[in-house]
Amino acid sequence: MRAVDVVQKKRDGACLTREEIDFFISGYARGDIPDYQASAFTMAVFFKGMGPAEIVALTESMMGTGDVLDLSDLPGPKADKHSTGGVGDKTSLVLAPLAAACGLYVPMISGRGLGHTGGTLDKLESIPGFNVRLSLADLRQVLRLCGLGLIGQTPEIAPADRKLYALRDVTATVESLPLISASIMSKKMAEGIDALVLDVKCGDGAFLRTREQAKELAQTMIGIGKGMGKKVAALLTDMEQPLGRNVGNALEVAECVETLKGRGPKDLESLSVELAAWMVHLAGAAASLDAARARVRQALASGEGLDRLRRVIELQGGDPRVCDDLALLPQARETVVLRAERDGRVVRLAARAIGHAGMLLGAGRETVASTIDHAVGFVFHKKVGDPVAVGEPIVTVHAGAPERRDAAIARLREAIVLGSEAPARVPLVLDILA
Amino acid sequence: MRAVDVVQKKRDGACLTREEIDFFISGYARGDIPDYQASAFTMAVFFKGMGPAEIVALTESMMGTGDVLDLSDLPGPKADKHSTGGVGDKTSLVLAPLAAACGLYVPMISGRGLGHTGGTLDKLESIPGFNVRLSLADLRQVLRLCGLGLIGQTPEIAPADRKLYALRDVTATVESLPLISASIMSKKMAEGIDALVLDVKCGDGAFLRTREQAKELAQTMIGIGKGMGKKVAALLTDMEQPLGRNVGNALEVAECVETLKGRGPKDLESLSVELAAWMVHLAGAAASLDAARARVRQALASGEGLDRLRRVIELQGGDPRVCDDLALLPQARETVVLRAERDGRVVRLAARAIGHAGMLLGAGRETVASTIDHAVGFVFHKKVGDPVAVGEPIVTVHAGAPERRDAAIARLREAIVLGSEAPARVPLVLDILA
Repeated sequence: MRAVDVVQKKRDGACLTREEIDFFISGYARGDIPDYQASAFTMAVFFKGMGPAEIVALTESMMGTGDVLDLSDLPGPKADKHSTGGVGDKTSLVLAPLAAACGLYVPMISGRGLGHTGGTLDKLESIPGFNVRLSLADLRQVLRLCGLGLIGQTPEIAPADRKLYALRDVTATVESLPLISASIMSKKMAEGIDALVLDVKCGDGAFLRTREQAKELAQTMIGIGKGMGKKVAALLTDMEQPLGRNVGNALEVAECVETLKGRGPKDLESLSVELAAWMVHLAGAAASLDAARARVRQALASGEGLDRLRRVIELQGGDPRVCDDLALLPQARETVVLRAERDGRVVRLAARAIGHAGMLLGAGRETVASTIDHAVGFVFHKKVGDPVAVGEPIVTVHAGAPERRDAAIARLREAIVLGSEAPARVPLVLDILA
Repeated sequence: MRAVDVVQKKRDGACLTREEIDFFISGYARGDIPDYQASAFTMAVFFKGMGPAEIVALTESMMGTGDVLDLSDLPGPKADKHSTGGVGDKTSLVLAPLAAACGLYVPMISGRGLGHTGGTLDKLESIPGFNVRLSLADLRQVLRLCGLGLIGQTPEIAPADRKLYALRDVTATVESLPLISASIMSKKMAEGIDALVLDVKCGDGAFLRTREQAKELAQTMIGIGKGMGKKVAALLTDMEQPLGRNVGNALEVAECVETLKGRGPKDLESLSVELAAWMVHLAGAAASLDAARARVRQALASGEGLDRLRRVIELQGGDPRVCDDLALLPQARETVVLRAERDGRVVRLAARAIGHAGMLLGAGRETVASTIDHAVGFVFHKKVGDPVAVGEPIVTVHAGAPERRDAAIARLREAIVLGSEAPARVPLVLDILA
């Protein structure tokens, strides 16, 4: 078999066999197939796509270049959630402890923020001492002790994906449904889970703006998961405005702690509960989805969820007292309050622009090499549809370096639109695919 | 400017600016842009194509990465011919001496054979001592002395094309009209010529099988040449059966010598004269195309063409006595005659299969690394449409290594089709584009 023939076959629109895909991906991971053939391949896939069987084979090949966690010795179902990313999207820190409190094991391997979206690892690292760089052996130990573990991608997990993703980033082949889906699923399926819930965001602040695109991605990923014998469901959720009230790493951790205390914003709480309930339901740990919801609500109300968060922070080297004293989290140097300049309603909080403003402020990364300021971010006092009176605070900016503040605030102002009429209400969960 | 943005722009189907193309090509030639971005780029061009202005810019950028011959000190028009390649396609060795005899300078930079098609350099190297590896300075000297020079691509000519062509070969991006056209024209335009005649072959033995494809390639190359201020015309010519009677390197040289003596096969003679006449005409060395034809015919009849061939062989280190004694060319170890097994007509001599048979025999290269046997090949005693009687010789196989002979003969037999009815006559020149 020759790599060039595989590229040509895909270029000409034919379906590749499992053997051809595995030859190419494993050869690329080993370094036998050079980058220049891999980038021609990914560009051919960009234009010609892949069928369901090809995408499953691609996912399995990429996963197979590395280790797959075997958690069969842990006495309970294993489940995880993956979000395609958004602004203020912090459900992981709420739902993983809740799901663990319901008897699941949640081996969550997450990523960092890039561009306008945040990343779970950055949020976790705003907790003093928290270590996301555990080995898979250490992750297993943490899981055994508290039911959840929160780490970054390790070199042992799907190395072909790691290599291919870096290549796609510099060859304009990121935006390919089969490649995106296989990349996500190769890492998630390596977690050794039985069930996966996908939170596929759509709207202004999401990677995919339209519901149709989000649905296609969701269906593709569900197809992969089912093709690999796993339980998978997807919730399509709205990402027109930030989720919750806080945007920025430490601010989002604080909001999650508050939510686990029952004092969080309604949208964050209800989405986290819904996603956790789907995890519990899919993993077979409740008789029905409604029973799962009730079980998750109970874990929230009883404080079991918060206990799990406190425990995982401690086990991963962080300071668990942040759960009781939010002032132990990094604090911004100054705060600036933006106020309503008219009476009316909040018509729009443009999520993407807010994400970019956060990046300008230092909360996010422009490139993977950027450093971030964990303390900075925004706290929204109003959400879309809320009435406002002139002079009322709309958002508080938690700022760090002054040279970053002004550009961020200018961008933020553009993202906030006040008007006379309340906009039509959009449900947070737009669709469910299972 | 970033290479990835140029790739993305082309991927999304936009027209690149001259600056973007030049940034990419010159950066690639320098090694600043890596192979993996160049292969993603060529694959994007494969799918999205290029507009006329982009193709001219691509050609000029590739040409500009190397030297361009300045022949302005030579007192006469400079012209060349390029063929897209075929089987038995040996017109260069006939027309270049004829055009030189008509007062043109012909700085011909040629290639080697690959796959089923032959290459001028391989044919020349079957002449004992002939050196195709002249520097550009030596080429200039030969040109000054005899009006033509026949060399291979040098490292100074369009190095970006050389690098990109090797990359395309292993990334399944060869078959792209803009890339093919720019590749050919970047080398031809570096010859410092005023006029170029394109022999665009179409049919079974050609790179492009249909007349429509051939026409599109011809028009693209004409567009490039005119965009660069040169005189260009294209003859679309038939390549269903081999041109002339001989296929194989030394055998083709012998046939060219015979043709320059007025004893060659009609098809080879008339196409060579026609192409040379177009060169003379486009270069402005005759008042009309008819006058150019008459001038070329005169150079043939007077033996001036043969004199030029003898002279260029001598100047490039070869043995000029081959022009008078064909036995000085490499001779095959054995000959095998294939005879008609029925009475009738030759219905088909399938050019591509004959080319492949030649390759199997050792006359051509399967890969660029293959070695070739200059002596081997085929001499056809019959051409398409000729009547045959049972037992009459159709083709003589000049064979070398016995282990190569049998597979070649089996392939050759399949290529020869006899029947009862003479097929419809197809003109050799199918169309002329200027």
